[in-house]
Amino acid sequence: MMTSDQALIAVTQTLAKGREMGLKPLSAIVLDAGGHPLAFHRADGASPGRYAIAHGKAYGAVMLGMTGSQQMDRAEAQHYFMTAANGVFGGAVVPVPGGILIRDDAGAVIGALGVTGDTSDNDAKAGLAALAEAGLNGDA
Amino acid sequence: MMTSDQALIAVTQTLAKGREMGLKPLSAIVLDAGGHPLAFHRADGASPGRYAIAHGKAYGAVMLGMTGSQQMDRAEAQHYFMTAANGVFGGAVVPVPGGILIRDDAGAVIGALGVTGDTSDNDAKAGLAALAEAGLNGDA
Amino acid sequence: MMTSDQALIAVTQTLAKGREMGLKPLSAIVLDAGGHPLAFHRADGASPGRYAIAHGKAYGAVMLGMTGSQQMDRAEAQHYFMTAANGVFGGAVVPVPGGILIRDDAGAVIGALGVTGDTSDNDAKAGLAALAEAGLNGDA
Amino acid sequence: MMTSDQALIAVTQTLAKGREMGLKPLSAIVLDAGGHPLAFHRADGASPGRYAIAHGKAYGAVMLGMTGSQQMDRAEAQHYFMTAANGVFGGAVVPVPGGILIRDDAGAVIGALGVTGDTSDNDAKAGLAALAEAGLNGDA
Repeated sequence: MMTSDQALIAVTQTLAKGREMGLKPLSAIVLDAGGHPLAFHRADGASPGRYAIAHGKAYGAVMLGMTGSQQMDRAEAQHYFMTAANGVFGGAVVPVPGGILIRDDAGAVIGALGVTGDTSDNDAKAGLAALAEAGLNGDA
Repeated sequence: MMTSDQALIAVTQTLAKGREMGLKPLSAIVLDAGGHPLAFHRADGASPGRYAIAHGKAYGAVMLGMTGSQQMDRAEAQHYFMTAANGVFGGAVVPVPGGILIRDDAGAVIGALGVTGDTSDNDAKAGLAALAEAGLNGDA
Repeated sequence: MMTSDQALIAVTQTLAKGREMGLKPLSAIVLDAGGHPLAFHRADGASPGRYAIAHGKAYGAVMLGMTGSQQMDRAEAQHYFMTAANGVFGGAVVPVPGGILIRDDAGAVIGALGVTGDTSDNDAKAGLAALAEAGLNGDA
Repeated sequence: MMTSDQALIAVTQTLAKGREMGLKPLSAIVLDAGGHPLAFHRADGASPGRYAIAHGKAYGAVMLGMTGSQQMDRAEAQHYFMTAANGVFGGAVVPVPGGILIRDDAGAVIGALGVTGDTSDNDAKAGLAALAEAGLNGDA
């Protein structure tokens, strides 16, 4: 299990990593293993809709048990499957990198980090670096 | 007609077949001829969103009277039709294999089994094997 | 944590208890700690909409951390709060007895059982009896 | 204007105040002047649906320019108005105390804090104390 404090550290560290890396202002969310928000932070200068994008990246990862990269691959190969999957989840899934599964040491999914604001690849890099500092295992 | 007990057996046998076949943890649902849930079971280790995917495979099969394979063919040939069909069914249809029609001996649809967790083709194989053991006719 | 097998036993035992008690045909669902379905069964003769009612009783319990009885008391005292709470959960909450929290030995919520088909009080009695047989702590 | 850092401090201070006051585990969100999330934190032990409740308290405050207490008074006096208001806002408004407007020194609304987890009155008390420590003016 992930604690509320670990979730907050992962989120604030993601925004800090973004500043260190010179990225655009980031927004980050951590969801628990049931897809429910534990912590969120949006940097000054980020656009107002960033909560929904960050949430969508993390939510798809938890609900499908697939990383953002895996979801993007599936969307490229079989777009109607990801469209349909999104339909059954109320349109709440954003299937691109920046949706990062958080795993315990046995590999079980204990939540997800969603990052948005720069390119999807940079979002994922900042998130992975932040999870490492928070002592959590990220799978992007 | 299908009984409530047959539905439960089909569902639990699908999860057992998945274990026998060495598949990832499966989730399975049986809907009646009106598209309403009779029985559902999700294996330990399956991601939390598997109810919605399993339901979407079975629901599309019953509501359209088409197997998952037939729906996928239609999505490949005419994606806007399946997108539109999904619109009228509230986004609840997942048009890929693993949506299996259940037919009586005269061929009439008496329900559907939806299976998810491994590849779509393996999902369908496990479901067909389970229906055979439950004494039900599957059409994938 | 609750296993997938415990969830199935709780559900099938609830239907069996209903038959023993001479109740109308019951339907029962178990959700995990994140509000996601683990097992469901609907008895022969139950009306087709029973999945949604059973789900709504269990879902409200998990999401709010309140039993069905507590939700009903709040609805009686401050109806606009429960109406609003339901709004934020997509209308998916049914705030009456038959929504039973499942707790671990330390008292933490590990899921919920939702039961429907007879009177709300009888639904709750059958569910509590079934949870006891499944070795789970019910809080109705 | 409120900074992203002020929003985070208001949120984490609200959870800290709840612990100091011996309340149940709290969840808190800060929305900006457009009703969009800046920061959120949910304490260990809070139920998974607390994001939606906290959001609903803050969202109603910003969108209507009314505190949670004012919304509750209106719901008591004219329930169909608040029901209708909720209709136009997609059901996202929770009209009870714990929805706190944040004002600049001239009195203009620059955002809102939403708090949930204990009684509505205690939620509001913890939130007001936290805003004072963050150097922000709360109007509950």
